[in-house]
Amino acid sequence: MVENVFKAMYVIADFIINASRALKKEQVERMINKLVEVYHRKDHKILVMGAGRSGLVGRAFAMRLLHLGYNVYVLGDTIVPRIGKDDIVVAISGSGRTKLIITAAEAAKQVGATVIAVTSYPDSPLAKIADIVVEVPGRTKIAREEDYFARQILGIHEPLAPLGTLFEDTAMVFLDAVVAELMDKLGKTEEDLKAIHANIEI
Amino acid sequence: MVENVFKAMYVIADFIINASRALKKEQVERMINKLVEVYHRKDHKILVMGAGRSGLVGRAFAMRLLHLGYNVYVLGDTIVPRIGKDDIVVAISGSGRTKLIITAAEAAKQVGATVIAVTSYPDSPLAKIADIVVEVPGRTKIAREEDYFARQILGIHEPLAPLGTLFEDTAMVFLDAVVAELMDKLGKTEEDLKAIHANIEI
Amino acid sequence: MVENVFKAMYVIADFIINASRALKKEQVERMINKLVEVYHRKDHKILVMGAGRSGLVGRAFAMRLLHLGYNVYVLGDTIVPRIGKDDIVVAISGSGRTKLIITAAEAAKQVGATVIAVTSYPDSPLAKIADIVVEVPGRTKIAREEDYFARQILGIHEPLAPLGTLFEDTAMVFLDAVVAELMDKLGKTEEDLKAIHANIEI
Amino acid sequence: MVENVFKAMYVIADFIINASRALKKEQVERMINKLVEVYHRKDHKILVMGAGRSGLVGRAFAMRLLHLGYNVYVLGDTIVPRIGKDDIVVAISGSGRTKLIITAAEAAKQVGATVIAVTSYPDSPLAKIADIVVEVPGRTKIAREEDYFARQILGIHEPLAPLGTLFEDTAMVFLDAVVAELMDKLGKTEEDLKAIHANIEI
Repeated sequence: MVENVFKAMYVIADFIINASRALKKEQVERMINKLVEVYHRKDHKILVMGAGRSGLVGRAFAMRLLHLGYNVYVLGDTIVPRIGKDDIVVAISGSGRTKLIITAAEAAKQVGATVIAVTSYPDSPLAKIADIVVEVPGRTKIAREEDYFARQILGIHEPLAPLGTLFEDTAMVFLDAVVAELMDKLGKTEEDLKAIHANIEI
Repeated sequence: MVENVFKAMYVIADFIINASRALKKEQVERMINKLVEVYHRKDHKILVMGAGRSGLVGRAFAMRLLHLGYNVYVLGDTIVPRIGKDDIVVAISGSGRTKLIITAAEAAKQVGATVIAVTSYPDSPLAKIADIVVEVPGRTKIAREEDYFARQILGIHEPLAPLGTLFEDTAMVFLDAVVAELMDKLGKTEEDLKAIHANIEI
Repeated sequence: MVENVFKAMYVIADFIINASRALKKEQVERMINKLVEVYHRKDHKILVMGAGRSGLVGRAFAMRLLHLGYNVYVLGDTIVPRIGKDDIVVAISGSGRTKLIITAAEAAKQVGATVIAVTSYPDSPLAKIADIVVEVPGRTKIAREEDYFARQILGIHEPLAPLGTLFEDTAMVFLDAVVAELMDKLGKTEEDLKAIHANIEI
Repeated sequence: MVENVFKAMYVIADFIINASRALKKEQVERMINKLVEVYHRKDHKILVMGAGRSGLVGRAFAMRLLHLGYNVYVLGDTIVPRIGKDDIVVAISGSGRTKLIITAAEAAKQVGATVIAVTSYPDSPLAKIADIVVEVPGRTKIAREEDYFARQILGIHEPLAPLGTLFEDTAMVFLDAVVAELMDKLGKTEEDLKAIHANIEI
């Protein structure tokens, strides 16, 4: 009756495992190194941005950066300080073509900030602006076989993970995995994270 | 160098697959049936709520409900209409103990709305208020073996998915899977979703 | 001891009264007429946008449009539907030069939506894009005398209403006054507004 | 044709002037003194909260506190750190009865934070929780004469400033006036504020 729920969860989780294998190690290293380096700079700031569901994935990452002890902000929050040359912008966009994110990333470049792009397209406008690009696959990239599998084997005609779902869920898990790496590199325990976690939240 | 990134992605994705097997079919069916039923009711409203990262997962689900054609709102958005007895509240909380969510869910019950709780704890205060409970596992539930695996086999001392990460990522994928089922049940194509998707967004 | 509080309230309120006299009646009429006309069109949508404090003023206006019965959305909210040629965008920017708002207003024009700009500058980029412009004065426009008054008479050297404060507070009151006019034109009572007001909010 | 717009602006601005005269000086002084004191405490935090339009007024205030150099956060933003005994909560609620705000203020009291309530009702649940109460009048308090004036003199039957409008607009201007006082007390110029103002915002 609700078989698609189980199938879709499997398809998405399986995609995430495949995506983890498709990640480019040097790209991930550059991102991690930059985030470790900036952690030790007093008064650094990280601004996370993304539109739509990618923006929500960015917000979930930003919360963990806060728990790790970063001075982190989210484009769209009420509280966003001025960004300068010592700061980092993390921009998340599967297509790398979201206009408002490109406009914002350009503004960040203009003041000398370092832009890290998380996108499926290394030749997209966003990736071209960025100093560091991390390619995270979305459906158009790897998913052809999943679509084939869904249609031929499972007999499903519409994609089980429509629109940007595969990119968004993979980016969510990838950024949580970046948090695991940062915990290790910064010597943070789960207790350290809990000590900063909001005690009044909605 | 950045091995934890790949390990953590694997651990989280593997957890999601295990979690999909641990889902209770009747609970998922009740949630889906309610969402299908309400779709055909003109002027129904769905209000999605959650605190912190669970709230972000709820927002990602709410966006897809919008794309499916629902009248959906998010607690915390500027635009939230009055909720009444024909409406549905989807409340997401791993622990089922988040105070502001319980307060809001109680207010929803008072006006006769149907409350669907997505939580790891079927005996939590939130679950007790709810009309429909869907148990989605988080770390405390299944993750003991993952923790053991991480510590003994991978030699990692801090959890690769700290705090509520496993619940949040699993809930994200579970709710995307609910969307797949709803597409099927409501006869929606990816094109239908695209036709409602925001063309101006941040 | 806290004399500036009382002085600043007076200066701002006095500015609002002067600003109401400086409003151009035909501009206000065009805005009101458009909002009345669209109200009767089933499935119309209004999207309100503004950056920073102007965005908050826009959100406060959007809440009242909701209470009046409009299908209204806010750029930056989770729930934002596709905008089309029958829809209205209300863009608020004192300077009329905020990049992200201009980008968004251009996107709205491209799909044929009607753009209403609330700005101090009728020759700004935003005003030039807009179909309807309502000039709402800010400090640079009228406030010279207030500044003079503050400095010479009150002996205060820094402005009592720094940066965009005068525009923002005046726009807030102006848009609340637009709500009063719409209540009258649409035959709405305070009870009607209350009936739509959120019963669960944060 | 659009006479209500001008009348309503006058009525609201006039109300603000009357409200400024009705403010209790000692209450305002206590609020200002606390905010000045906490400014000099390294690592202090201010959390601003309010529901609905009062929440938007709080956000506008929070932005200016940021510009003044405070470590300020907003309940409902993505980024909200843990609050402790050295921190301040500013809670805004005309009625002082908004459930979620009372729940949040109670949580703040429990960890020893100082709660400042901005409300029309000094004997409301919120005011009773608060350490410092500043009474800001809303319609129910002073507005009887305005209502009378509107109905008898202007011939208008529905209030020109419905629901919480008078409280919200007055609180907005009052809090901007608090900013003017803080600029003076902290020796901040408009240039200082501009130097912190966001350069990338939506």
